[in-house]
Amino acid sequence: MEELQKLPISGHTDTYCLIGDPVAHSISPAMHNLSFRMNGIDARYVAFQVRSEHLAEAVQGMRYLGIRGWNITMPHKCRMAELCDRLEMAGEIAGAVNTVKNVDGVLTGTTTDGTGWVESARDSGHDPTGRRIVQLGAGGAGGAILVQAAIDGAKHIDVFKRVNAKSADAQRMVDQLNEKTSCEVELHDLRDLRTLHACLADADILLNTTLIGMSGTPGCLIPDDSFFHEGLAVSDIIYEPRETELLRRAKAAGCETFNGMYMLLYQGAASFRIWTGTDMPVDAVKKAVFS
Amino acid sequence: MEELQKLPISGHTDTYCLIGDPVAHSISPAMHNLSFRMNGIDARYVAFQVRSEHLAEAVQGMRYLGIRGWNITMPHKCRMAELCDRLEMAGEIAGAVNTVKNVDGVLTGTTTDGTGWVESARDSGHDPTGRRIVQLGAGGAGGAILVQAAIDGAKHIDVFKRVNAKSADAQRMVDQLNEKTSCEVELHDLRDLRTLHACLADADILLNTTLIGMSGTPGCLIPDDSFFHEGLAVSDIIYEPRETELLRRAKAAGCETFNGMYMLLYQGAASFRIWTGTDMPVDAVKKAVFS
Repeated sequence: MEELQKLPISGHTDTYCLIGDPVAHSISPAMHNLSFRMNGIDARYVAFQVRSEHLAEAVQGMRYLGIRGWNITMPHKCRMAELCDRLEMAGEIAGAVNTVKNVDGVLTGTTTDGTGWVESARDSGHDPTGRRIVQLGAGGAGGAILVQAAIDGAKHIDVFKRVNAKSADAQRMVDQLNEKTSCEVELHDLRDLRTLHACLADADILLNTTLIGMSGTPGCLIPDDSFFHEGLAVSDIIYEPRETELLRRAKAAGCETFNGMYMLLYQGAASFRIWTGTDMPVDAVKKAVFS
Repeated sequence: MEELQKLPISGHTDTYCLIGDPVAHSISPAMHNLSFRMNGIDARYVAFQVRSEHLAEAVQGMRYLGIRGWNITMPHKCRMAELCDRLEMAGEIAGAVNTVKNVDGVLTGTTTDGTGWVESARDSGHDPTGRRIVQLGAGGAGGAILVQAAIDGAKHIDVFKRVNAKSADAQRMVDQLNEKTSCEVELHDLRDLRTLHACLADADILLNTTLIGMSGTPGCLIPDDSFFHEGLAVSDIIYEPRETELLRRAKAAGCETFNGMYMLLYQGAASFRIWTGTDMPVDAVKKAVFS
């Protein structure tokens, strides 16, 4: 904590922030402020609760206040993509951004949610490069992960998604990935359990990106243990609870598992690098914020 | 510094700020952050450089980001008054605000510059209540001081101002003060040295609120030492340099003097009270920030 006293907030201090609704329980301020301090960067990261109907005006204000960068969380990720002046590829294909960099009033957006999950998978010993993945869900974070895993060299991704109004968008995203990356991506109906079973038999990683399994929406999309097999790694982007029903059952069936905690860490680390050009001290952040 | 470690920045932390152009050398972040820390308030105060052409959008953003309060410095004080939803009396009469409180998106503005000077005068042993004051200049801060000194019970204030496009505004302000307060206020032409000499002969306090004497615009509006007399207290709102030519000559002529440092402290203390309902720990702030 010594560095903090050496760099008190002054008129030179840069401001970064999180916007979302709600934001009160976010750990992002803790992650980024520790990292600024440890890297000797004169900046602070705060959180603002912004209502959807005021997002555009809030963003215009941040542009002109010179807030140097921000993260965007639920429910603003898609609208924020529309409010950016430029989008990096991941943000453009996913149609959602969680990270904006403001350089002299020009806003460049991208999503680091995908990188966050890919890095967390590597951290857990399950690098998705060259692997076959079965992914459940293709919403906000799910879309970002799908894009990044394809960009980062996953071999094949079977996406299972509910058939609804957003299916056409998901199909467009899948088509773009097949065109722009070397990954083979297929979109399936989440109700098609026979196909799910077949895909999982060949898969290296099963990933849940839906809300099913969260504290508010308990449950598990995998019907029974015959869908698991030895050597399948099972991941959930949920971290509340730390162990979802999916992870609990997969672990009982002998699979290695990892939850969404380190996805949160690594999406932050990727944002931090975009903003500061320096590496987040992830070991220290793990110890101080994630343990 | 212990308290700071007890209240690291989180999603619950409130944000306050300074807006102006420039802001980089402001001591307001140091003042307010030390005070938040010592009073156990979970908040931070940062500074944003905002260009005049973007002020309205920046303020709209601050409204919806939920920035809880802000100070306004040059050159935005008058425009900020127009952007508020409500004005307290001092801000309304002065037509300038240096302090905004944002309660659920409703912006209430006032100026604490006047209170800042009045408190600094009291701190120096020269309470303006019941006194005769000669004030040079009636611009942004000058107008605010004029209003507050009149509200706070100065007996008589002779204001000497350049004759220019803003003279009509100054006359309106003087008329309002004569109507709404018990103070007698008179506006004079700054070139009328005979009247200045006569007014000063009866005055208890001489106050310079013009820029003359600052590092960039050196000089002194008082022609010679015959304008001073024993028992006259001489004040300058300038604090760069700490001792202007006015103060140096007044001191040499045997007058007590005080510069604008503690006006800066007490305007901040008044803003802090408006925002938090608590008293700034001024002795600690004097020691940490002003010594």
